[in-house]
Amino acid sequence: MTTLIKDLPSHIGEEISIAGWMYNRRSSKKLHFLQLRDGSGTVQGVVVKSEANEETWSAAGEATMESSVRIGGEVRKDERSPTGVELAVTSVEILALAQEYPISKKEHGIDFLLDNRHLWLRSRKQCAVLRVRARLIKACRDFLDDAGFTLVDAPIFTPNACEGTTSLFETDYFGSKAYLTQSGQLYMEAAAMALGRVYCFGPTFRAEKSKTRRHLTEFWMIEPEVAFNDWKDNMDLQERFMRAIVGRVLEECAEDLKVLERDLAPLEAISSPFPRITYTDAVATLKEKGQEIEWGDDFGAEHETVLSEVHGKPVFVHHYPAKVKAFYMKPDPDNEELALCNDLLAPEGYGEIIGAGQRMDDLDMLLAKIEEHGLPIEPFQWFLDLRRYGTVPHSGFGMGIERAVAWVCGLKHVRECIPFPRTMYRNTP
Amino acid sequence: MTTLIKDLPSHIGEEISIAGWMYNRRSSKKLHFLQLRDGSGTVQGVVVKSEANEETWSAAGEATMESSVRIGGEVRKDERSPTGVELAVTSVEILALAQEYPISKKEHGIDFLLDNRHLWLRSRKQCAVLRVRARLIKACRDFLDDAGFTLVDAPIFTPNACEGTTSLFETDYFGSKAYLTQSGQLYMEAAAMALGRVYCFGPTFRAEKSKTRRHLTEFWMIEPEVAFNDWKDNMDLQERFMRAIVGRVLEECAEDLKVLERDLAPLEAISSPFPRITYTDAVATLKEKGQEIEWGDDFGAEHETVLSEVHGKPVFVHHYPAKVKAFYMKPDPDNEELALCNDLLAPEGYGEIIGAGQRMDDLDMLLAKIEEHGLPIEPFQWFLDLRRYGTVPHSGFGMGIERAVAWVCGLKHVRECIPFPRTMYRNTP
Repeated sequence: MTTLIKDLPSHIGEEISIAGWMYNRRSSKKLHFLQLRDGSGTVQGVVVKSEANEETWSAAGEATMESSVRIGGEVRKDERSPTGVELAVTSVEILALAQEYPISKKEHGIDFLLDNRHLWLRSRKQCAVLRVRARLIKACRDFLDDAGFTLVDAPIFTPNACEGTTSLFETDYFGSKAYLTQSGQLYMEAAAMALGRVYCFGPTFRAEKSKTRRHLTEFWMIEPEVAFNDWKDNMDLQERFMRAIVGRVLEECAEDLKVLERDLAPLEAISSPFPRITYTDAVATLKEKGQEIEWGDDFGAEHETVLSEVHGKPVFVHHYPAKVKAFYMKPDPDNEELALCNDLLAPEGYGEIIGAGQRMDDLDMLLAKIEEHGLPIEPFQWFLDLRRYGTVPHSGFGMGIERAVAWVCGLKHVRECIPFPRTMYRNTP
Repeated sequence: MTTLIKDLPSHIGEEISIAGWMYNRRSSKKLHFLQLRDGSGTVQGVVVKSEANEETWSAAGEATMESSVRIGGEVRKDERSPTGVELAVTSVEILALAQEYPISKKEHGIDFLLDNRHLWLRSRKQCAVLRVRARLIKACRDFLDDAGFTLVDAPIFTPNACEGTTSLFETDYFGSKAYLTQSGQLYMEAAAMALGRVYCFGPTFRAEKSKTRRHLTEFWMIEPEVAFNDWKDNMDLQERFMRAIVGRVLEECAEDLKVLERDLAPLEAISSPFPRITYTDAVATLKEKGQEIEWGDDFGAEHETVLSEVHGKPVFVHHYPAKVKAFYMKPDPDNEELALCNDLLAPEGYGEIIGAGQRMDDLDMLLAKIEEHGLPIEPFQWFLDLRRYGTVPHSGFGMGIERAVAWVCGLKHVRECIPFPRTMYRNTP
């Protein structure tokens, strides 16, 4: 019988066996302190020379870092341990002696670590990030499922390069061309007309030559879409969503966030209302802060950073100029130069983590927009059908998971927020 | 205030307003019976000429199929209705009059329906399938999350065409080549050494020229991997998993399964143990049943169909000949011609829904296998590292979601089991 390390606190006083890996060791003439991990947690095992048989003592001394081991011992209360227990080791079996492990305590360059991503994953911090990612994803799904949404997976292969091919990955599809999706939104609009409240959640792709800390060529995005929601309902939904997912990570990942040395105050600040400012006011603020920007310009990363530092909590910026947003955004009926859309900027300089908007639901306006943008009509016929057959106001948003994880974990670069990152220069391991 | 149709039973006697679409209408001189849907459910609305004002009566008569409408009325108990309520309509507002809807009650060919997949999704049966799919996916994730697994998303872009390029989709990746993943397994093996129990769940791709009812070029697969599990633990896990997910769909999707006219008996049969037979015994059974097969042949769809009809419940077939399985399967130490692997065949002729196995954990054996298969070593170095640094016995499996949904829903073809199917001949809408 193998016991998981995370379950040890409920076995105090018992003789148990764990199976895992040697994470580290400190030894003296009389003692070995073994740091053991099994994926569920870590525990310190103590081997006392005067109490151990010869086999156990020497195996404990021989096991190299990352060797796989089976360890028997008694679970003891230990106040100094973060988990409250340690293991009084009575047996050590080396399952496989590891070769000299390439990742050590010393600092490694990021390229070296990414080349060894398959091993780097084993380190404490990386495990913590992966667990936060998994919990955050679950929180997203649970929130929407509980709110009556239906998951509708959007296709990855899309037939048309509707908005140009420059940032699309292309593949031969049995003699014709197919492209990898950049967003499931158009498909979610169709699904919302069937099921009312829907979302997709899958990988999306951008062949952008971006080398910033916010870009991956392959990233995961969650995209809810709701029939009959207008742009204000949409912001309300985003706010409830963010509060729920960050709240749940705070609740469930306290230990991981501690490993990551995350300051919790900025995360806890999400419990109060998010400021909502117009693009126009945001431009004024940026100018006050000495930023170079003119009304009508799209925000750059630097602008978002500045704005997101002003409020100390996530902030909605809405009513962007229509011309800096996608053609399918609904214009404000009171001022058609503005779009009924919003971004949500994370605080602490993290910038945009959500892009959102009410969609253009009028057939003739949408047709005019497609023409105005010089796009071909034919590939959009199915999308236009949604306006021919019972069109309704509808809105939705997209949140990139890696950016959300980066913010929640307090990591500067999104490349650590996905198990196997893909960037312009990296497609391995 | 808009009320969701699914919530109407808790508003009996109240005046409410719903927003949705006209699904159907029957009319006489004195009455309109409106079938209304809003994505959360359907309800019948009754307009009585003698009680309605002129506007309401005529709007109810004018609203074409799939027009979007806002309907006001009183919720009334109705024993004949499947939901127990109907709506005594007092107001009808047509939000957008639909053009003549292309999908009618009459039979349509499958190509027509798939060309109009964006509209076909709105029909009762398709909504039911999508809901079952969403619930089944949630059941899979919840089962694993509750069992201490961590979700670790595998990459979609993979650098190497390790096992040949014939069934791989290829893309230009900033001047080099990348391929779309066929399985996250190898990555899950790395992650299992970090986190113990892991799974990935994402789209996978096969550029196979298969036109069978079981094949899609893009399909979703869930792949758990567990450190320290052997092939028997692995079957136990699969059995608990299948029982949990089918059980939950039975519990939560009763109404949808009724819409699909699904015979529940074969699904309920999963509560008893699954038979476990060897490949060798399976071949004998097939021969008895008059099938053409020799020991050493891989099973075809026909063989799986025959086998899966024998037991009336899912059946494990294990110990396949090593040479028909992937190179990384662990051979049986008692007979190296056999692999410590299994498939799980769904009953009622549905065939394989799970492929599983214990992985080869010995460095030298794995090196020899890679050489034997004429594969290049270099791209596998990271995978070999998992055997260099603390290798342990480990096992896992992969379940294709669309095949599982097809079985649970009793559908013959997987193309209805994914929102926007991609097949050899279809990449639209």
